[in-house]
Amino acid sequence: MQMHNKKIGRQTVKLENPPKIIAAHSIVGPKEGEGPLSGYFDEILNDDTLGKDSFEKAESQMMFTAITETLKKAKLKETDIDYLFSGDLLNQIISSSFAAREFSIPFFGLYGACSTMSESLSLASIIMDGGFAKYVIATTSSHFSSAERQFRFPLDYGSQRAQTAQWTVTGSGAVILGHEGNYPEVTYVTTGKVKDFGQKDANNMGAAMAPAAVDTIVNHFKDTGRKPSDYDVIATGDLGIIGRELADKLIQEFGYDIRKQHIDCGEIIFDKEKQKTEAGGSGCGCSAVVFTGYLYKKLMKKEIKKLLLVSTGALMSTTSSLQGETIPGIAHAVAIEMM
Amino acid sequence: MQMHNKKIGRQTVKLENPPKIIAAHSIVGPKEGEGPLSGYFDEILNDDTLGKDSFEKAESQMMFTAITETLKKAKLKETDIDYLFSGDLLNQIISSSFAAREFSIPFFGLYGACSTMSESLSLASIIMDGGFAKYVIATTSSHFSSAERQFRFPLDYGSQRAQTAQWTVTGSGAVILGHEGNYPEVTYVTTGKVKDFGQKDANNMGAAMAPAAVDTIVNHFKDTGRKPSDYDVIATGDLGIIGRELADKLIQEFGYDIRKQHIDCGEIIFDKEKQKTEAGGSGCGCSAVVFTGYLYKKLMKKEIKKLLLVSTGALMSTTSSLQGETIPGIAHAVAIEMM
Repeated sequence: MQMHNKKIGRQTVKLENPPKIIAAHSIVGPKEGEGPLSGYFDEILNDDTLGKDSFEKAESQMMFTAITETLKKAKLKETDIDYLFSGDLLNQIISSSFAAREFSIPFFGLYGACSTMSESLSLASIIMDGGFAKYVIATTSSHFSSAERQFRFPLDYGSQRAQTAQWTVTGSGAVILGHEGNYPEVTYVTTGKVKDFGQKDANNMGAAMAPAAVDTIVNHFKDTGRKPSDYDVIATGDLGIIGRELADKLIQEFGYDIRKQHIDCGEIIFDKEKQKTEAGGSGCGCSAVVFTGYLYKKLMKKEIKKLLLVSTGALMSTTSSLQGETIPGIAHAVAIEMM
Repeated sequence: MQMHNKKIGRQTVKLENPPKIIAAHSIVGPKEGEGPLSGYFDEILNDDTLGKDSFEKAESQMMFTAITETLKKAKLKETDIDYLFSGDLLNQIISSSFAAREFSIPFFGLYGACSTMSESLSLASIIMDGGFAKYVIATTSSHFSSAERQFRFPLDYGSQRAQTAQWTVTGSGAVILGHEGNYPEVTYVTTGKVKDFGQKDANNMGAAMAPAAVDTIVNHFKDTGRKPSDYDVIATGDLGIIGRELADKLIQEFGYDIRKQHIDCGEIIFDKEKQKTEAGGSGCGCSAVVFTGYLYKKLMKKEIKKLLLVSTGALMSTTSSLQGETIPGIAHAVAIEMM
């Protein structure tokens, strides 16, 4: 059987029935709420525990809230939603699983580290485009305190932070995809490969993720025939300042200059000087809240018409790092356009 | 825009261009190789370290081997494969990420605990049916020693095992989906919801997963109009003996009797008496190797013509258990038929 193939090039599919992002919600912690994007977030928490007795429960509660609020905005019930795609940074993605058990929605759990916003959006868009669903939710979250406890040092140690270190964003973003209305559309999905260039420093994840971001962006251009100037904004997930500069340099070796279009969610979410966040923000929640808070609103106002969202993930664990393994990276790109 | 919707009922899609499972490979550890299904596995390891210096690296190497061998069987190169769907039990799914970095294949990382074989097969089947891919690989793995170290006690403690405890299977299974040839086809995908009935005992995961399995199987019957006797075999993932008995009982409350068709991969992979495996096998690798080893060969020989594979996952982490959380479960069902 010869089937019509929607794949163009090696890594990209062109969506023929582009799903629309009909609702988005962003919820962030107090520190993110004091940053440069303060005015764009839908909800800023005063208390990053949300009244829960653990940071893990607080993170899961943020995701629950983000999902609930998108449902309200879209005037939909949970039973209208065909699938929920979600993942997070915590071991066994407990933020997602514990949020998902509150909803009666078929659930696909994902792990893409900080690439999860564009991973969930990719799969949600594909399943919509294929005619398998009317409405799908894509979401992710991260929490500074649950991530620091898991990946680095107990907060109480007061360890000094490296200059290349990034600050895990406390936040969750959720979107609902549908087929109707005048909303930003997902037009292309470019799925990343795992890339590893031998970086071992868990305090410099930007350097580990930059080659993956470049690989995915370059392949997006090759597969689609597009070029940097076809986009108003190319937003990488959380390379941070160092990773963003590295990506801008690396991609020139492939003949592309993205410096005019390129912003990095990790770089713009904090004020480096005032907020002491070193290389910038990170975590699944970083590109999730910058997208659902800042970029989505710009798309809705047509201040941005063509966006390439490229969330980036560092695929290590504490075990792999202790065993001397290098840090593989991945990046997934999703083209989002407002007509 | 009114799109044709392939969703039937709340949780199921009917695949209109059913993808075929054109190759499968199973690789297991020495203990699994001594069990009742010994004759069905493609590869039995003498040394469950595979010569690596950690069990985590050994697990990743098993998955690498399973992928490589399916490619050989299908006479395909890695560049023929459009997507790789994979996940595992380890924190941040390092077995999958480290296996995936060896291949130049667009990668979607998943986390569904022990439901991962049917989760990866579900998404792979949907993406094939939607015309987004020509060939897709779905795979997962688990390793007794990496899982015990992460979830329970250091092996050296020699802790006594509870009677309800299950034995994590050392193994990996991989399949390649394609559109051509006379192979078993994936006809329906029923996606599970996260169910939590308040079970807290991490040594009795069968009881935590049984309600999720029952919920998914019941919804599969409701959505498709099928009944237990439409299947030759209904194979749950790794409920084990106790969970399997519980599921058989629970499902009768919904008016279905599946005892004639029901086998559990965790129950049949070990000989309880001889192998001292208490309630049976578990782990992502359990349903993966029972499916790719035993059930796939039975399908190819038409000794089984209609199979419902229902891998089941317990979605807890050590952190959530220590915080007193209950254990949510999930199960995904995939109908596989040999014409």
